[in-house]
Amino acid sequence: MKIDILSLFPSMFEGVFGESILKKAVEKGAVEYNVTDFRQFAGNKHNSVDDYPYGGGAGMVLKPEPIFQAVRHLTEKTSYAPRVILMCPQGERFNQKKAEELAGEDHLIFICGHYEGYDERIREHLVTDEISIGDFVLTGGELGAMVVTDSVVRLLPEVLGNEESAVKDSFSSGLLEHPHYTRPADYEGMKVPEVLLSGNHAKIDDWRMKESLYRTFTRRPDLLEQMELSDQQINWLEEFKNNVE
Amino acid sequence: MKIDILSLFPSMFEGVFGESILKKAVEKGAVEYNVTDFRQFAGNKHNSVDDYPYGGGAGMVLKPEPIFQAVRHLTEKTSYAPRVILMCPQGERFNQKKAEELAGEDHLIFICGHYEGYDERIREHLVTDEISIGDFVLTGGELGAMVVTDSVVRLLPEVLGNEESAVKDSFSSGLLEHPHYTRPADYEGMKVPEVLLSGNHAKIDDWRMKESLYRTFTRRPDLLEQMELSDQQINWLEEFKNNVE
Repeated sequence: MKIDILSLFPSMFEGVFGESILKKAVEKGAVEYNVTDFRQFAGNKHNSVDDYPYGGGAGMVLKPEPIFQAVRHLTEKTSYAPRVILMCPQGERFNQKKAEELAGEDHLIFICGHYEGYDERIREHLVTDEISIGDFVLTGGELGAMVVTDSVVRLLPEVLGNEESAVKDSFSSGLLEHPHYTRPADYEGMKVPEVLLSGNHAKIDDWRMKESLYRTFTRRPDLLEQMELSDQQINWLEEFKNNVE
Repeated sequence: MKIDILSLFPSMFEGVFGESILKKAVEKGAVEYNVTDFRQFAGNKHNSVDDYPYGGGAGMVLKPEPIFQAVRHLTEKTSYAPRVILMCPQGERFNQKKAEELAGEDHLIFICGHYEGYDERIREHLVTDEISIGDFVLTGGELGAMVVTDSVVRLLPEVLGNEESAVKDSFSSGLLEHPHYTRPADYEGMKVPEVLLSGNHAKIDDWRMKESLYRTFTRRPDLLEQMELSDQQINWLEEFKNNVE
């Protein structure tokens, strides 16, 4: 997979792309990152990439030319159509399903604005996806692009080792994870639940499933609505509900 | 405000904390960042920070000691209680309201795990807030901590200039932003709407409000449910609904 980022702050990406799984993915040949400062495509003598909004108002607006030209430059030698992703608060909410969809692509291009608005023609004629990572205001699209990149790249075949992929499997069950404990069994008086030290694996599996269900019940009941539950799980849920009342 | 990050990958933060608004906030004296590798608090000869889970299973679990010790070290000279924030998928969903709440604090400590689970005693006895930035799987808590930091720091007094703060004001209206356009008025045949070139400010304001409402209606109707709408807005919504049918 090829990942291109258009940003006015290319060095923001160095720390994140140079560590851990995102770095390993490059070493394994699964992905190639390229960060382009689209100011080089400004095409005017002051290298300006933004201008005042038509119709007046506060704030600046990113001009169409630099971004259209940068995307054309990045795709002129490619025969396939890339996904051109605009990071913006009005976009579709990012989730794991979208990450899985994007992980099937050959080429992603992220456009990251930085507190300015985007000229609407970029949205209408260049972009294939508008993505938001949540209902909060960020300084720019860069952090969102890093978040999407991280969640997509870790899904590419052979990127994750066995150890790391355990986390994914756990999430895929549809429930929140049960509590984890490791040594010491007693840390300053804070103890690990007895059942986990018992060696009785049937009991441990039961405890974990019930805790997982309880955590989902208290924190994210919306996830339960989409699930097919076993008889045992339905009984436990009744028990939780009775204890609340 | 003081922001401490506990992470096994401190250099991930360099690019993001060293650029743009997050960097300016330090220069203005509004915030101080400090990234601590909690491996230095491992307290065992192999410097190990994780161990196998009690009760068996795949994956590793972050041990309690290194994280308890690191937090104690960071708070031993402080008289106030800091917010100790665990970044994890089971946490409370981050939003703008939470950003505003955290912006009122003096000291935030972020605990960032990295594909391992956390020993539950960290959650129960050390952490004040568990935060998730969304329903997607990331390699670690680092990107989430950067996202929360960015959204909080830009809210601190005097951090944003007038230009940047325009975006915030727009978001605060409760509606998605209307389209923006800047020069050229005609870019390769793609034209700016006539009304924005008219100089008639009453018409421009009307056009913008209607577009803002339309975008919210089509993309985020949930936002409209929480708003008090004007008569004009209610009429426009009727018009949109009739056009859909």
